[in-house]
Amino acid sequence: MKHSRREWFRVGLHAAVAPTIMIPKASAYDIQEIEGKLESGTGIAGVTKNDLPTPSLLLDLDAFESNIRRMADHASENGLDLRPHAKTHKCSEIATRQVGAGALGVCVATIREAEAMAAAGIGGLLLTSESVGLNKIHRLMRLCKRRPDTMAVVDHPSNAAELDEAAGSAGVRLNVLVDVDPLGRRTGIPPGSDAVALAETVDRLANLSLKGVHGYCGASSHVKGFEDRKRHSEKYMGPVLESHAAMVRKGLPVEIMSGASTGTYNIDSALEGMTELQVGSYALMDVDYRVIGGRGGEVYDDFGNALHVLATVISKNHDDIATVDAGLKAFATDRSFGPDVARPAGLTYAFRGDEHGALTLADSEREIVLGDKIELVVPHCDPNVNLYDRMYCVRGDYVQQVWKIDARGHV
Amino acid sequence: MKHSRREWFRVGLHAAVAPTIMIPKASAYDIQEIEGKLESGTGIAGVTKNDLPTPSLLLDLDAFESNIRRMADHASENGLDLRPHAKTHKCSEIATRQVGAGALGVCVATIREAEAMAAAGIGGLLLTSESVGLNKIHRLMRLCKRRPDTMAVVDHPSNAAELDEAAGSAGVRLNVLVDVDPLGRRTGIPPGSDAVALAETVDRLANLSLKGVHGYCGASSHVKGFEDRKRHSEKYMGPVLESHAAMVRKGLPVEIMSGASTGTYNIDSALEGMTELQVGSYALMDVDYRVIGGRGGEVYDDFGNALHVLATVISKNHDDIATVDAGLKAFATDRSFGPDVARPAGLTYAFRGDEHGALTLADSEREIVLGDKIELVVPHCDPNVNLYDRMYCVRGDYVQQVWKIDARGHV
Repeated sequence: MKHSRREWFRVGLHAAVAPTIMIPKASAYDIQEIEGKLESGTGIAGVTKNDLPTPSLLLDLDAFESNIRRMADHASENGLDLRPHAKTHKCSEIATRQVGAGALGVCVATIREAEAMAAAGIGGLLLTSESVGLNKIHRLMRLCKRRPDTMAVVDHPSNAAELDEAAGSAGVRLNVLVDVDPLGRRTGIPPGSDAVALAETVDRLANLSLKGVHGYCGASSHVKGFEDRKRHSEKYMGPVLESHAAMVRKGLPVEIMSGASTGTYNIDSALEGMTELQVGSYALMDVDYRVIGGRGGEVYDDFGNALHVLATVISKNHDDIATVDAGLKAFATDRSFGPDVARPAGLTYAFRGDEHGALTLADSEREIVLGDKIELVVPHCDPNVNLYDRMYCVRGDYVQQVWKIDARGHV
Repeated sequence: MKHSRREWFRVGLHAAVAPTIMIPKASAYDIQEIEGKLESGTGIAGVTKNDLPTPSLLLDLDAFESNIRRMADHASENGLDLRPHAKTHKCSEIATRQVGAGALGVCVATIREAEAMAAAGIGGLLLTSESVGLNKIHRLMRLCKRRPDTMAVVDHPSNAAELDEAAGSAGVRLNVLVDVDPLGRRTGIPPGSDAVALAETVDRLANLSLKGVHGYCGASSHVKGFEDRKRHSEKYMGPVLESHAAMVRKGLPVEIMSGASTGTYNIDSALEGMTELQVGSYALMDVDYRVIGGRGGEVYDDFGNALHVLATVISKNHDDIATVDAGLKAFATDRSFGPDVARPAGLTYAFRGDEHGALTLADSEREIVLGDKIELVVPHCDPNVNLYDRMYCVRGDYVQQVWKIDARGHV
């Protein structure tokens, strides 16, 4: 847009600046002050979303707490154990609340996540990726010394032998689930006689304790439409459950049959033989899950969107678009879609490089001006959380706490 | 693949485990030992890539040092200043080496990056995104007190007024470049009379010091083919340079004309009026830049691939594929392509979820077994670095140092 003469005269009057940033000096906290206040206690009166740096990650506590409760209720009503997957949130504060709501412990995808959860006092850890190579195995053994109830997965006899040898050297007994592949060809041994033979091998090895079967069908979780998703999960989980049943018939100690995703939690809980759910995304939710369709309709709304990115409008030189300070480094980009704008209504977002996004303004519910705060629903929660070091927990506009994403970061 | 009877017998013999992980116990360092050794000095004899946790980020020092030297030579031969963009690497160790090779300082995209660079003793900072909103402005002022040579960009008169007021309150004088938009419609004021008027406004404001023009044409950087890219950059940078020239003719103090990317470094350095280059990716490189074509041919090889992700084969139950421990959380996913496999030769990689990738083995130069280490060229360097907390610097197979990616993380 051309700047009119009148606009030039307004320089110094903040005419085009959002009222939201014109908060009283009293609440214009320094970032260290905000962090200090938030880390020292709960419910800091006066710290609002407008005080926060951007881009930042917001956790809506009302939606989050409702999600945690709802899944815990579902598991308990169906007589299943719940061991939610912490790879979604990488946050021991969230894991603590999941355990507080009745979970046995949490699943983790990496040894780094396992170490962070253990450091925060979370037990009942199930590491759902194979531990191969000296570094992972060495750290797994150290973890088992600290947390003897830790469980690992195995999908190959040579890895079982290696873990047995390492456990023997370390003087620990490693709990093992046989990872059976529901035809995803990612990790896991194929169902059937090979899987049963691997369970027998694990059971024979002196320093391993066979505990059950792990079977995760990632391909089912995002199948659109509840009935199609149900058919998909039943088809691919069937052989896994049959392998588990065969182990039971052989008298192998396979008390645990772990699986399911947020997309199939109310499908897999009805599968014969399943003993625990390892659902993850339900705690936070994202655009990706909203569109798969629920039991009742086209939108999957069993759980609410609890995770948003907060951004600031930092450039506004055109009538039709505005630029925010959140781009490719602020969002997961592994899906074909970007984030949805939650607030204000009527805006659409498009990536504009590493640090920027463009808002299309044509249908905006109100005028968008420099300094406006924008809240966006993340496209895919797991990799989105992985980009941030902390999440700001809010009720309405007020910030209550800051939680470290203490299990993020590789190594 | 079905496990043969013979294979079952080999359990315990590590027959299917890579020789690379069978390193002598003497070098089987604990991860804390590795980190401690690497952080305490340079060139730890015996720590190799095989000792590292995976997925992890490797910096090939030979390629990196050659890239740094080559760009510094190019700038100096063309009589231009060099202020490399640290948004690419977010690593003050790299910035220190860029400054050591002759750079004036570094560009940064966020106030967080600026703070981290200043904390590490790097001066000559140019913050290339607009500072809008109380949080960013407050922190910018604090930074200016510490580093009075810091420069910020402005693309709107109301933001100029706001910065002037904040600088007055803080008792600092803020150096400003007018951000002129080469028709990217992302940030920047359109070229022409509006841009010149904004420069005059900045020059009039008591607490701002006009220093020049910032014009970054992101759309040019990845245009395929050298000649097409040259035409593109000349077309869109033309009006920016003309705006700068108009400011010069008016006697405005615009000594600096900053722009260019790794894709256009040897194009924009010939543009009349350009005074400094803010190239970033050249230090690390990625798949994205390799394919744009160079002056001499189809592959852009002016700079070498210095950045790799190291992964481990953690599942191998099929003849045609193997699974590694690096997936959507280990790589930038904003491009239509994934990483290239650098070593071993003949492999291709595909994403298989948050923590996993699948290697296609048909054309592999050798048999791939459990525990094998795989090196992959990152798809897009900036967001890829942003996923990691440190990079391991290597010469050949040996790890020399570990550098913190100290400017990553939002807030």
